[in-house]
Amino acid sequence: MKKPMVGIIMGSDSDLPVMAEAAKVLDEFKIPYELTIVSAHRTPDRLYNFAKTAEKRNLKVIIAGAGGSAHLPGMTASLTTLPVIGVPIKTKSMEGLDSLLSIVQMPPGIPVATVAINGAKNAGLLAAKIIGAFDKTVAKKLQSYKKELNAIVFEKAQRLEKLKYKKYLKLMK
Amino acid sequence: MKKPMVGIIMGSDSDLPVMAEAAKVLDEFKIPYELTIVSAHRTPDRLYNFAKTAEKRNLKVIIAGAGGSAHLPGMTASLTTLPVIGVPIKTKSMEGLDSLLSIVQMPPGIPVATVAINGAKNAGLLAAKIIGAFDKTVAKKLQSYKKELNAIVFEKAQRLEKLKYKKYLKLMK
Amino acid sequence: MKKPMVGIIMGSDSDLPVMAEAAKVLDEFKIPYELTIVSAHRTPDRLYNFAKTAEKRNLKVIIAGAGGSAHLPGMTASLTTLPVIGVPIKTKSMEGLDSLLSIVQMPPGIPVATVAINGAKNAGLLAAKIIGAFDKTVAKKLQSYKKELNAIVFEKAQRLEKLKYKKYLKLMK
Amino acid sequence: MKKPMVGIIMGSDSDLPVMAEAAKVLDEFKIPYELTIVSAHRTPDRLYNFAKTAEKRNLKVIIAGAGGSAHLPGMTASLTTLPVIGVPIKTKSMEGLDSLLSIVQMPPGIPVATVAINGAKNAGLLAAKIIGAFDKTVAKKLQSYKKELNAIVFEKAQRLEKLKYKKYLKLMK
Amino acid sequence: MKKPMVGIIMGSDSDLPVMAEAAKVLDEFKIPYELTIVSAHRTPDRLYNFAKTAEKRNLKVIIAGAGGSAHLPGMTASLTTLPVIGVPIKTKSMEGLDSLLSIVQMPPGIPVATVAINGAKNAGLLAAKIIGAFDKTVAKKLQSYKKELNAIVFEKAQRLEKLKYKKYLKLMK
Amino acid sequence: MKKPMVGIIMGSDSDLPVMAEAAKVLDEFKIPYELTIVSAHRTPDRLYNFAKTAEKRNLKVIIAGAGGSAHLPGMTASLTTLPVIGVPIKTKSMEGLDSLLSIVQMPPGIPVATVAINGAKNAGLLAAKIIGAFDKTVAKKLQSYKKELNAIVFEKAQRLEKLKYKKYLKLMK
Amino acid sequence: MKKPMVGIIMGSDSDLPVMAEAAKVLDEFKIPYELTIVSAHRTPDRLYNFAKTAEKRNLKVIIAGAGGSAHLPGMTASLTTLPVIGVPIKTKSMEGLDSLLSIVQMPPGIPVATVAINGAKNAGLLAAKIIGAFDKTVAKKLQSYKKELNAIVFEKAQRLEKLKYKKYLKLMK
Amino acid sequence: MKKPMVGIIMGSDSDLPVMAEAAKVLDEFKIPYELTIVSAHRTPDRLYNFAKTAEKRNLKVIIAGAGGSAHLPGMTASLTTLPVIGVPIKTKSMEGLDSLLSIVQMPPGIPVATVAINGAKNAGLLAAKIIGAFDKTVAKKLQSYKKELNAIVFEKAQRLEKLKYKKYLKLMK
Repeated sequence: MKKPMVGIIMGSDSDLPVMAEAAKVLDEFKIPYELTIVSAHRTPDRLYNFAKTAEKRNLKVIIAGAGGSAHLPGMTASLTTLPVIGVPIKTKSMEGLDSLLSIVQMPPGIPVATVAINGAKNAGLLAAKIIGAFDKTVAKKLQSYKKELNAIVFEKAQRLEKLKYKKYLKLMK
Repeated sequence: MKKPMVGIIMGSDSDLPVMAEAAKVLDEFKIPYELTIVSAHRTPDRLYNFAKTAEKRNLKVIIAGAGGSAHLPGMTASLTTLPVIGVPIKTKSMEGLDSLLSIVQMPPGIPVATVAINGAKNAGLLAAKIIGAFDKTVAKKLQSYKKELNAIVFEKAQRLEKLKYKKYLKLMK
Repeated sequence: MKKPMVGIIMGSDSDLPVMAEAAKVLDEFKIPYELTIVSAHRTPDRLYNFAKTAEKRNLKVIIAGAGGSAHLPGMTASLTTLPVIGVPIKTKSMEGLDSLLSIVQMPPGIPVATVAINGAKNAGLLAAKIIGAFDKTVAKKLQSYKKELNAIVFEKAQRLEKLKYKKYLKLMK
Repeated sequence: MKKPMVGIIMGSDSDLPVMAEAAKVLDEFKIPYELTIVSAHRTPDRLYNFAKTAEKRNLKVIIAGAGGSAHLPGMTASLTTLPVIGVPIKTKSMEGLDSLLSIVQMPPGIPVATVAINGAKNAGLLAAKIIGAFDKTVAKKLQSYKKELNAIVFEKAQRLEKLKYKKYLKLMK
Repeated sequence: MKKPMVGIIMGSDSDLPVMAEAAKVLDEFKIPYELTIVSAHRTPDRLYNFAKTAEKRNLKVIIAGAGGSAHLPGMTASLTTLPVIGVPIKTKSMEGLDSLLSIVQMPPGIPVATVAINGAKNAGLLAAKIIGAFDKTVAKKLQSYKKELNAIVFEKAQRLEKLKYKKYLKLMK
Repeated sequence: MKKPMVGIIMGSDSDLPVMAEAAKVLDEFKIPYELTIVSAHRTPDRLYNFAKTAEKRNLKVIIAGAGGSAHLPGMTASLTTLPVIGVPIKTKSMEGLDSLLSIVQMPPGIPVATVAINGAKNAGLLAAKIIGAFDKTVAKKLQSYKKELNAIVFEKAQRLEKLKYKKYLKLMK
Repeated sequence: MKKPMVGIIMGSDSDLPVMAEAAKVLDEFKIPYELTIVSAHRTPDRLYNFAKTAEKRNLKVIIAGAGGSAHLPGMTASLTTLPVIGVPIKTKSMEGLDSLLSIVQMPPGIPVATVAINGAKNAGLLAAKIIGAFDKTVAKKLQSYKKELNAIVFEKAQRLEKLKYKKYLKLMK
Repeated sequence: MKKPMVGIIMGSDSDLPVMAEAAKVLDEFKIPYELTIVSAHRTPDRLYNFAKTAEKRNLKVIIAGAGGSAHLPGMTASLTTLPVIGVPIKTKSMEGLDSLLSIVQMPPGIPVATVAINGAKNAGLLAAKIIGAFDKTVAKKLQSYKKELNAIVFEKAQRLEKLKYKKYLKLMK
């Protein structure tokens, strides 16, 4: 088995249903990854160990998901020179605006590559794009993925144009 | 000189004009404190050392100010059992809403006692209230402080009632 | 039975399902407390009596929860020199942003130690941290609590690393 | 001199430049008023006395201005059966959104008649409208005021239509 | 039957479940009112007629509820000298923030007495307070209402203190 | 069959239940239209072709619906001189505020006529109003539509005045 | 002189510096227009007259600018079948968010074509696009305008590529 | 001269003072880049050419800055498989919240790596981190940069601890 190139971490297993989307994308692109739970607040030492050894363990990108006062992506970014992708998890009370601002508004010197609220799928794709910029096999897969997205829209568009909206809506249900 | 009972930390010296207000209050209440710069993002190891030794160094309360993706108060709270007071510093682009949400929306298990945006003076007073709950000398000073606040309002009210608003406004300028 | 050290108050019994979390934490830490309903708006005299006698009744900390135009924590803080912890209750129309701002944006002179929206559990813990700063028994329990939080994450992390995300997700349901 | 019919209160003399607008309107309508400083947080006893005697002192309406965690209008409303008009004062960090939500989101049972942020002039007018509903002299003045507002717009509209926008803009400077 | 003293209007019958709360309060206080649908956008002429004849028809206060681009309260206020109370109706997409800002941020000259989002009950009470300032019978009922609110809290508080939170919570369900 | 005068496009078929409302209005006004899926992000070339040929294909107005980072209306507007109406689709995490701001805050030079969140019905009506400004048949239909809206409110108002609110509410369920 | 095709109205002459941008665009496109002040709140009768005669006076589009509780565009739209473009004017306390939501969140049946906050220039262009959809001379001018926008960017881009950013920045000052 | 590895684009030269910070960082890290103006709205064809040839021209990362309805980063991302970093530019009316949401809330399939509002410096650093993950020379420079950040904080902290806050504040001015 190949060494993981991407590390996927999250603050709690309650974030797993969202963060699993990042893993699925990497599975699809056959990019090896590791996935685990690291809490900035409950396991700060574990975070230090994880982040400080990431580069040596051959990781190229880290994806970190967290909600509310979401410190995991930013603290990880402060402990490694690798690019860190932050996924703001939607919260119960602030709709994820708290998570988004906690992750994206990093001070000069410590960037976090932030994606949409609950955007773990895009975090996986962004990791693939980063790796694809230096790896032709992944770059080709990204080209195919792009074409596929395009094809799906075309197909649906044709179907909608043919069926008209009333029938299409009925069949959607 | 007495051992510091309060630690005041901030992420950058650009926060000092705000955070100095906390120190001024503690000076007024004669509560010994230490004040320094600790950045969660730029000096994560320094933060670990600071927070993990805080209790042994006799600190009773920590006041931490930070802006934007404000991780300093929450990370400090995760590394010590002492109460941590967070001061959200007003930012240029989000008016401090980002700092406030980053500090206050902590997950279960790791509270941060959050005060108003730029509310460093109140952070100092909250530290005094915490100490005062267990120290009669400080409690008495808090009583006097409260009376003084009250007296200032009374005095201004009397003056306003006497002068009427037009004169009062002229003299305010 | 020991005298209560913490007073837990809320504006309405509809806040009890949230505020009970604070009581549960204090039960766990064996910190004696009193818990009742005091409405700033519907029982202003009761609030005055409660707050003005708090110190004499031996309370060290007050936890106050309220929603919407949440005046209970701030008004309590204005009537006592004890530290007051405010819990913004989530509301139907503004997601608790109204409660949060009403509680946290206190003017200079009257701090309220604000926790997250619906963060009553953390309010209980913050009370324990405040007492623990002056009481070794409580401080030790906080150390154990911290270790336990840490251990739970480790255990889940190991399980997730072993089962991989697909199995783990299935078992979560 | 007639007994005051309107009480205008504010939390601090720093609110006076805004709140004076309410007094000016009442001067214009010849409605007698009293104007003073009452702080919910710094002078809670003074607030109790003020609000509880308001009705007996013949007041018909109370106008209360406050900023941030703005508790003055709501606490006044909880202590009297008179209608209370709340003026949210614009704040430095939240643009007055905190003041607005603290004042307007009152719980069932205790209404506050909230006007726009810094809308003290409208608070004065609303007091006049409330009195005018039961007093024909004031009602007539409100009719005249309305006509005057109308006339001012007509006059400016005619001037703009005649001068065209370029000249009008030049003369505005 | 007595002439209506309060007019309750709303933009659509979909607002009736909320606005009925205002009518219930007035029923309780035995204040005669009229209640109907007037849409600023769909029936602008009806709005003109309603508002311009309100004073002559003996109305003392108008309560207007509307959601989204909520123009009904403000336009009514511009067409009469009577006090107008605005009720921002909660909307599907903006949680009622759009309704609140549309109603409360009126320009100088045309106040609307705004209550909380969906706060129709408080709108009814505010109307009663306005009438009560000039009518002793209503004022007395407001005193009783206030005492009742107070008594309900006391009763619940005693029950909670007796049962403790666990039993109380069980019995709440 | 007449050539389409309005083009209705949306980024994904998941937007169809909302966007179909625009088509229904145009059906009612007998304004011929085309309706299809064009994704700014997944089918950028398709968007270019669609927008650049729109004028030649005789379209007079384009209605574009999109959610989140909603680029479809603005990018369409940048590729044609026809008026483009943007419909912000409500999103899961930001209640459609993200869609609204992405669509409405266009830079000088490239306007998008934005309607309410999920306001596809109004987008259809706005298209009809634009066409009606130059076509008397459509203008007449708009007059009838306006009268009908008015009549529906009148009818409901009469019913409510007759039944009173309690009966009306019961019959609504 | 040709009959005006566009009506530009605003609630107050303080909006003129912003709204003049719409007039400038129409001057540039040689589209005749009328420009005046109409206040929904201060001159409701004038608004009725203006809007109800607009169609007969040959207007094709109305541009209405307003701030805060911005009712002018929506009320105009409710009184005419012509398309109405709304310009949310930036306000002192809410940054124009209040104006934007008041204008854009119109109920089904009464659309307002909303542009960006202070986007009067784009309102003028949108009016030109609406007229251009039915008038080839205007359509051609829109084509030229589009090319010019494009050319300006190209020219600046070339200059920046040649000078590099440091020199370009110096020359910008 | 080496081929550019990073493309820096912005919608307008008014964004240059902000975006130049990204270029400065790349200068410091000796990473070759190209910098120019590409407007999604004013030069859509230029954007297509730029983005579709980016990979062939050897670019590894694209940094795109835009404000308001900020479509440049997302549209670029939709036209290339390279990673795109988005910089939300602060705007006059919405403080950059509009830019942030327009850029970060991308739909599944098309990620944009978003940094803080006006965070162009961090965009440059993120590009360096992405390249550094595959290039040891850049990785080493990142290590040194990190140490330097750390050292600057230490130095300031020592100075503050020595001078105490009053002197430090005086010398800051």
